Amino acid sequence: MTDTTTDVSVGSDNSRTPSRRSLLAVGGAGLALGAAAAGGAVAVTRTGDDPQPVADSGGAVSFHGAHQAGIATAVQDRLHFASFDVKTDDRDEFVQLLKDWTKAASRMTEGHAVGEGAYGGLPEAPPDDTGEALGLKPSRLTLTIGFGPSLFEKFGLADRRPEALVDLPKFPGDNLDKARSDGDLCIQACADDPQIAVHAIRNLARIGFGKVAIRWSQLGFGKTSSTTPDAQTPRNLMGFKDGTRNIAGTETARLDQHVWVGAKDTDANSAWMSGGSYLVARRIRMNIETWDRTSLQEQEDVFGRDKGEGAPVGKAKERDEPFLKAMKPDAHVRLAHPDSNAGATILRRGYSFTDGTDGLGRLEAGLFFLAYQKDVRKGFIRVQRNLSRSDALNEYIQHVGSAVFAVPPGVRDSGDWWGRALFSKEA
Amino acid sequence: MTDTTTDVSVGSDNSRTPSRRSLLAVGGAGLALGAAAAGGAVAVTRTGDDPQPVADSGGAVSFHGAHQAGIATAVQDRLHFASFDVKTDDRDEFVQLLKDWTKAASRMTEGHAVGEGAYGGLPEAPPDDTGEALGLKPSRLTLTIGFGPSLFEKFGLADRRPEALVDLPKFPGDNLDKARSDGDLCIQACADDPQIAVHAIRNLARIGFGKVAIRWSQLGFGKTSSTTPDAQTPRNLMGFKDGTRNIAGTETARLDQHVWVGAKDTDANSAWMSGGSYLVARRIRMNIETWDRTSLQEQEDVFGRDKGEGAPVGKAKERDEPFLKAMKPDAHVRLAHPDSNAGATILRRGYSFTDGTDGLGRLEAGLFFLAYQKDVRKGFIRVQRNLSRSDALNEYIQHVGSAVFAVPPGVRDSGDWWGRALFSKEA
Repeated sequence: MTDTTTDVSVGSDNSRTPSRRSLLAVGGAGLALGAAAAGGAVAVTRTGDDPQPVADSGGAVSFHGAHQAGIATAVQDRLHFASFDVKTDDRDEFVQLLKDWTKAASRMTEGHAVGEGAYGGLPEAPPDDTGEALGLKPSRLTLTIGFGPSLFEKFGLADRRPEALVDLPKFPGDNLDKARSDGDLCIQACADDPQIAVHAIRNLARIGFGKVAIRWSQLGFGKTSSTTPDAQTPRNLMGFKDGTRNIAGTETARLDQHVWVGAKDTDANSAWMSGGSYLVARRIRMNIETWDRTSLQEQEDVFGRDKGEGAPVGKAKERDEPFLKAMKPDAHVRLAHPDSNAGATILRRGYSFTDGTDGLGRLEAGLFFLAYQKDVRKGFIRVQRNLSRSDALNEYIQHVGSAVFAVPPGVRDSGDWWGRALFSKEA
Repeated sequence: MTDTTTDVSVGSDNSRTPSRRSLLAVGGAGLALGAAAAGGAVAVTRTGDDPQPVADSGGAVSFHGAHQAGIATAVQDRLHFASFDVKTDDRDEFVQLLKDWTKAASRMTEGHAVGEGAYGGLPEAPPDDTGEALGLKPSRLTLTIGFGPSLFEKFGLADRRPEALVDLPKFPGDNLDKARSDGDLCIQACADDPQIAVHAIRNLARIGFGKVAIRWSQLGFGKTSSTTPDAQTPRNLMGFKDGTRNIAGTETARLDQHVWVGAKDTDANSAWMSGGSYLVARRIRMNIETWDRTSLQEQEDVFGRDKGEGAPVGKAKERDEPFLKAMKPDAHVRLAHPDSNAGATILRRGYSFTDGTDGLGRLEAGLFFLAYQKDVRKGFIRVQRNLSRSDALNEYIQHVGSAVFAVPPGVRDSGDWWGRALFSKEA
C-alpha cells in the first residue's frame, strides 16, 4: 500500500458537518498522520448550554458549557447508556481516568477519532480508536456523566455526597433486577446514529479497562420524549404520545426552576453540583402482548389521551391544556401532571427498547425512562409515589431496573474535566 | 373530544413520502374513519424487483414483485429479525395466517396502519394497529418471509422441501445456542427507522398470536453491507469495511447467477421456489475487548485490508482489485473471496448488534450475518467450510446462532400471498 488518502467529500453532504473521514488522515500501511488528523476544522452547530434545536442531525453539539450537553439538548434519536462499577481504589488513577475520558469524549462529540494520532502511531500498538465511526458524521453525539450514590463510599468522598442524591425508596410494584440497577457512575450517549453512540460507549469502556467495568448497559432505539416544543411528540411502544408537556430546551426559566442545580441549592459540601442536575433511570418493561389485546377505549382511559391525535380527554388537540377532572381518577396523564404532584416537573428524555424475546416468546420491550431534575425528592420521587400507588398503567408495565446519579456541571473548556469540582481539593 | 383531525403536513417533508398520519383519519373518542384511512394515496418510489437505490430514506419500497423486497433492495439502516415456531396443526388456519400477514405486510410497507379501519372500528375492540408508527414515514420498510427446514415436517409438506434447503453442517468452532437458532419460519424487517421495523414485527407477531410464537429475535442497529455500488461501504464493529465486493442490487446478471432461484434450478417438487432465494442467518459474537487490544498491524493482517481506507493489502483504494497472494494465507478477505471458493458468491446484508453486556461486563456485540444465495451448498456452506477451518478472524469471533430458510418468490399482486405456490395444490 503506497497511497495516502484524505478524502474530504465522502459521507459529507453538508459543509457544516464534516465526516469523520474528512477529519482523519489515514496513512499507508497503518502509519497514521497525527498532525493532519489533529488539524481538521470542526463545525459546531450549538453549544452545550445554548439549547437551540438543531435541524441538521449530522452536526456536532459542543461538549463544553456551563451544563453538560445531553440534558437540555434537543433529544437525539438513539441512545446507548452504560452504568459502570469502579474497580480501582486509587484516587489518582480514577482522576486520571476522568481526565482521559473527558478528552476522548470531547474529541468524539466533535467527530474526531479517539487519540490524536487516529491509530496511535505505531502498527505494533492497538489503535487508539476502534474505528467503526470512521467516515460517519458527528450525529449530534452527546456524552453525559453521572455519579451514583455508591461512588461516594469510595475515594474519601463521603462528605461530598449531596443531600439531594438520595437512594430511591422502594415503590409499590417495583420488581428490580439488581444486575440492571445502580452503578458507581453512568455515561449516557445520545446521537442520531446508533453506531456513533455505541462507538462512544465502547471506546470509553476500553479506556477504562481495569479501572472501571460496565455493570449494565441499555440500547434505546427510539426517543419517546422531545425537548423541542415545535417538534412532533414521539410515540412510546404503547402507541401513545406521553411527553407532550415536557420541559423544552429553550425554556431557560423552567430549566432553572426544575432541572439545573443553582448555587443557592447547594451547601459547602455540595457546591460542586452547581450547574448540574440529578438523573433517574428506570427500566420499565411493558406487557406488550397484554396491552395489545386491550380495547382502544381502555387504552385511552388509561392514558387520559386519545391515541390518534394525543389530545387530552375532552380536548381536540395534543397541546390543548388538559382538564384533569374530565379524566378517570387513575388516568396516567392526570396522576403525572404537576397539578397532582405539588408542581413537580421533570425533564424526560427516555427511549424505547427492545431486547429480543423472553423465555415465553414475549417481546422484551418497554421504556428506558430517563428524567433530569434539580432535586429527586421533589421531582421523580414525588411523582412516582403517586403513580406507583394509583396509575391505571401499572397493570401493563413493571419497573425492572433503577438507578439514580448526580450529574455534575458542564466541562467549561479544554483544561477542565468531568468531576473536577468534586475531586479538586480547592473546589 | 369533539374534533376529527386529518393533518396532512405533520411529519411529511416530501410530497412523495406521506406520513402515516396523513394516511389515517383519526376520529374522536376512538371512532376511526375507515373509509378515509383506506383512501390515502401511496407514493411508491421503487418496486420490489426494480433494484434502483432510493435516496429518500423516508419513502416506500413496493411490496409486490417477482422477487420479495428486502434482498436486492438497497440495504436499509436498521433491522428487526424474528424467527417463529408454528403452534397450530391446522393447515387452513396457517394458510389464513399467511394471507392475513401478507395483507398486513403490504399495508405497513406502504406506510399504512394494519387494518383498514385504522383502529378496528369499535372502541370496545383492541385497535388493529398498535399505533407506535402513526405519524412516521414508510422508511423503506421491507418485510421478507422465509420457511425453515422444520416447517416441511408439518402440514404434509415433506415432499415439497427443496433439495437446496439443507440443514447446515456443524462447522469447526461453532458454539450454537439452540434458543437463538433455527425456526419454522422467519420474517426479516428492514427499514431506515428502527421504530418502523419493530412495529412491523410486533404487529405480525400479534396477528399470529396462538398460531405462531416468536422463537428468537434480533435487533440490528447498523448495516454492515451495502447493495448499492456507489455508496460508502459501512464498517462492522471491528472497525473494518467487509462488504466491498458485495453483489449490487443493480447487477441483474449476478443476481440471476448467484441469488435468485431460476425455473431451471427447480424440480417438480420445488418449482414453487422459482424466483425465490435461500437465506442463511448467523449470529456472530465478536470478542470485542480482545480485538480492541490487538495491534493495528495484526488487525489489518487478519482482514487483508487496511483499516482506514479499506484497501486490499498492497493496493491504494478500497475498490481496487485485491491481489490475494499478497495477503497472509489466513487473511479473511483472501479466504472469503470467490477465487478461493470455486466462485461461490453470496449477497450479504448483515447488521451490527449490541445486546447489552454479558455476565463478565463484556459487550454482547457482534455481527448478525444475513446472506442470500441461489443454493446454500454452493454458497454459504462452501465459503464457511473454508473460513471456519482457516480464517485468522476466528480467534476474535464465535458463531453462536444459526438458521437457514427457503425464501419464496415475491407476492405478485394484491390477490397473491406469501407462500401461495407452496401451499396451493395446483402450484
